Amino acid sequence: MRTSQFLIATLKENPSDAEVISHQLMLRAGLIRKLASGLYTWLPLGLRVLRKVEQVVREEMDAAGAQEVSMPIVQPAELWQESGRWEQYGPELLRIQDRQGRDFCLGPTHEEVITDLVRNEIKSYKQLPINLYQIQTKVRDEIRPRFGIMRSREFLMKDAYSFHVGQASLEETYLAMHRAYTNIFTRLGLDFRPVIADTGSIGGSASHEFHVLAGSGEDDIAFSDSSDYAANVEMAEAVAPGAAPAPTADMEEVATPDVKSIEDVAQFLQRDPATTVKTLVVDGEEEGALVALVLRGDHQLNAIKAEKLPGVATPLSMADEAKVRKLCGAGFGSLGPVGLPMEVIVDRSAAALADFCCGANRDDAHLVGVNWQRDVPLGRVEDLRDVVEGDPSPDGQGTLLIRRGIEVGHIFQLGTKYSEAMQAQVLDENGKNVTMTMGCYGIGVSRVVAAAIEQNHDDSGIIWPAAMAPFQLAIVPLNMHKSEAVAQCAEELYSALREAGVDVLMDDRNERPGVKFADMELVGIPHRLVIGDRALADGKLEYKGRRDADSQLVEREACVDFLLERLRG
Amino acid sequence: MRTSQFLIATLKENPSDAEVISHQLMLRAGLIRKLASGLYTWLPLGLRVLRKVEQVVREEMDAAGAQEVSMPIVQPAELWQESGRWEQYGPELLRIQDRQGRDFCLGPTHEEVITDLVRNEIKSYKQLPINLYQIQTKVRDEIRPRFGIMRSREFLMKDAYSFHVGQASLEETYLAMHRAYTNIFTRLGLDFRPVIADTGSIGGSASHEFHVLAGSGEDDIAFSDSSDYAANVEMAEAVAPGAAPAPTADMEEVATPDVKSIEDVAQFLQRDPATTVKTLVVDGEEEGALVALVLRGDHQLNAIKAEKLPGVATPLSMADEAKVRKLCGAGFGSLGPVGLPMEVIVDRSAAALADFCCGANRDDAHLVGVNWQRDVPLGRVEDLRDVVEGDPSPDGQGTLLIRRGIEVGHIFQLGTKYSEAMQAQVLDENGKNVTMTMGCYGIGVSRVVAAAIEQNHDDSGIIWPAAMAPFQLAIVPLNMHKSEAVAQCAEELYSALREAGVDVLMDDRNERPGVKFADMELVGIPHRLVIGDRALADGKLEYKGRRDADSQLVEREACVDFLLERLRG
Repeated sequence: MRTSQFLIATLKENPSDAEVISHQLMLRAGLIRKLASGLYTWLPLGLRVLRKVEQVVREEMDAAGAQEVSMPIVQPAELWQESGRWEQYGPELLRIQDRQGRDFCLGPTHEEVITDLVRNEIKSYKQLPINLYQIQTKVRDEIRPRFGIMRSREFLMKDAYSFHVGQASLEETYLAMHRAYTNIFTRLGLDFRPVIADTGSIGGSASHEFHVLAGSGEDDIAFSDSSDYAANVEMAEAVAPGAAPAPTADMEEVATPDVKSIEDVAQFLQRDPATTVKTLVVDGEEEGALVALVLRGDHQLNAIKAEKLPGVATPLSMADEAKVRKLCGAGFGSLGPVGLPMEVIVDRSAAALADFCCGANRDDAHLVGVNWQRDVPLGRVEDLRDVVEGDPSPDGQGTLLIRRGIEVGHIFQLGTKYSEAMQAQVLDENGKNVTMTMGCYGIGVSRVVAAAIEQNHDDSGIIWPAAMAPFQLAIVPLNMHKSEAVAQCAEELYSALREAGVDVLMDDRNERPGVKFADMELVGIPHRLVIGDRALADGKLEYKGRRDADSQLVEREACVDFLLERLRG
Repeated sequence: MRTSQFLIATLKENPSDAEVISHQLMLRAGLIRKLASGLYTWLPLGLRVLRKVEQVVREEMDAAGAQEVSMPIVQPAELWQESGRWEQYGPELLRIQDRQGRDFCLGPTHEEVITDLVRNEIKSYKQLPINLYQIQTKVRDEIRPRFGIMRSREFLMKDAYSFHVGQASLEETYLAMHRAYTNIFTRLGLDFRPVIADTGSIGGSASHEFHVLAGSGEDDIAFSDSSDYAANVEMAEAVAPGAAPAPTADMEEVATPDVKSIEDVAQFLQRDPATTVKTLVVDGEEEGALVALVLRGDHQLNAIKAEKLPGVATPLSMADEAKVRKLCGAGFGSLGPVGLPMEVIVDRSAAALADFCCGANRDDAHLVGVNWQRDVPLGRVEDLRDVVEGDPSPDGQGTLLIRRGIEVGHIFQLGTKYSEAMQAQVLDENGKNVTMTMGCYGIGVSRVVAAAIEQNHDDSGIIWPAAMAPFQLAIVPLNMHKSEAVAQCAEELYSALREAGVDVLMDDRNERPGVKFADMELVGIPHRLVIGDRALADGKLEYKGRRDADSQLVEREACVDFLLERLRG
């Protein structure tokens, strides 16, 4: 391709409304343009990248035995009413009426449509398992579209749905999808982690998210420094430390006038927050009951873990302070486990403390030198907290690191949530009707493009991983319109490289060298070959990899082989 | 691909609600399934066909210098208000509101969005011409969706838009698109005609439709039996025949009691309708004026031609009969040009008659032996009628045939309709603002699939042209699950052919031979190789082309070469 025949729409200025680097660079490099809030047009350069991602996804899905289909974007309300989601889904679901006044929605996802298709087409266990996918534009009316295509209202998604008789078959396909996703993101050259995820409101039994690690991610990912273990911070288990050491101090009460937060208490008493505990009172499962959750002062309560515990209300809700004061004789900042008139659940790390500090259940007073069993019974011990960096990895290998991640994929054992609601059944080996088990598997295809940029860029612009680059190589002839030698050499190499199957962009614009260099770096072409009169007179050309600090001279005669070698690299 | 791992969803019964053969066969062969009125899911087999069409379209568009982009499906109302189409477009435009209550529509076409993009990105004539296209799902809320994907509410379309300074540049790209479309439909193996089309309500100066010829088409296409000439019947010129012969009869009035229609008059007077004329009275251009249009009895008035004539009201409207009776003394069935008190426009063929019959301008009476000039002045002679088969081709080469056609493509010189309304300007060579000229070019990608079936099928099912076939070749092993020899031979050939780059479907289902044969014919695989124990014992296999009456035996050893030769076609 020649830039003279290809829309290079780079911008010099940083767009003012782009908050994250990928959004800025996608606009500046001319990959996308905004049509309206959360709606973007993909320009030719951007679309080339998107199509490359799409193709890798397709190849790996096909290789994993999935079959591609294409379902409508517009979906009838009836199916959503059957599954119950017509009521449950909020205003993110864009609802429309056709000219006859019938209700439809624009598909944010296709569980209902595929379940309807499969219950009509598949009658016997012999036809299972089946895994159907599509790569399609989805619509979600985000309340606050932002970060460009990272959280847009239209986006390209690969969504797959598998159907099974029984859990074992589901788990087999789930594993195949886990491998396919790993292949996809590996081939795309991304630093990613498959992380154990919360199954959240979709329901179901097991779930992994695939996260591209990048500082701008919206999720915190905890992963081992020496194994494959990775989980959303909210899902990572905080493993139990050893037992508490023996007591060395006596329990005593100290005055802490107007000192309430852990930070203030620690500072006031000049001790490490890690040697204090905080006591949070939440509503119990039974009407009117209260439960105390005790954590180390430097740890954060993990609401997801807490609300899964028997005895704790779901969703988790903090108790009413007046009610607590009436019962315990103190406000939130002065509570402690000693003599607390309610069930006390102690986090594993808090349970390993000795000589700790806690509220005295009297305002303006704390206890120090407190020890479990000696001063207060240690009842239930549970995992109540978010993991922190340095915690041991739950798989027993190495310690945890925590990084930000951008979710680009999600695989999910759905179970029978949809198939039961929509009566999707087949005949089993015994001729008996059984409800199919389902899995679903998504990749945010357009989001992958943004995530790749968040992970791979520098001050000059995008640095595409090889598999995603819109072009593999840029030929930049200098003064091509004046120097016949340069023009001839450029044309020869352009032909030779194209014949060798290389995706070349030839920058034949009549622009200053500086403009061409800046543009090619901004749009992130991985390899660059500069053809200039001076070096050419010595039979040499200038090569620079996008991540290289400096360029190097290459013999013109050896140039094609040199480049092919680099491209294989 | 193996049928055991690929969804073959053939139906034995003809679906009751499918009116046309392509719709029936697409359902029966398991290419599509209906989700709701006008909304279809493409199953794996159908999607393979659709993707092949898509890829041919993409390759030829790219080869013609067009650049692929991808615009949102959801479009803001503001742009449609700017172009004026928000008001003009009927309920086919599916309008929606987002959660903030802002107006949007689902794009049936993208003139507004692309014009907005180009006016923002393109500033100078140096960046022109540019031709941008996308292959995308479009939504039109058809009042009566029918014929399956032929007239559905969601469909896949290739839409391209070109921008120019001046008409000459537009015409160059228009011609390039004409060539690209010709290449596309030729490569797809379809019998098609690029036909001169009416520019209709879109406005603009020139337009061709690309029609696939098929009996079920909705349009009548007139084309020469010996040249490239083709036009929509409504657009084809009816060339002037020679002058009228000399009179041989006297004019006389005959009684025709209660005889009004041409058929009745001809039968009553025992003459050929081609020797009679009919006189239609329409409203004139000026308020209250009437104009008579005179055609040969066997010809049909062409409203499009008539309403383009000076003096005739647009849109064409028949005059009020009471008003005509008052002025002429007779009703519609008894009118004739002799002594008619209004302007008379005579069709070219009617003007070439002698001794003809016409209404007498008195009820229940006709004139016979009427001759122009002798009995009634011959004033304006114009082309007023639809062409009929056997008419000379307007380009002077051969005579016209008329066939039904299915419109699958449309190219259009839009001119400045959108660029003017939306102020899409660039600086020209003199630094002056000029409004860009536009062309637009559509292909109904999904409709091409249906049209191909309408043109290529028999009683057994679909007969795919090679370029569109979901698989090139079916291997049908008989009793594969019992005969090791058959299974081994099938596996060997499957591997060998796949290695040779052939798209093979191996029917490894445990089904009766009859079921397999019927399925492979129904889904239309162009080539079939049967492996059976008996022939195999003699070292032979059975080959049958989808259009062949009988199968032939092929030496097993020579089989791969034989097939590759056939596939090369």
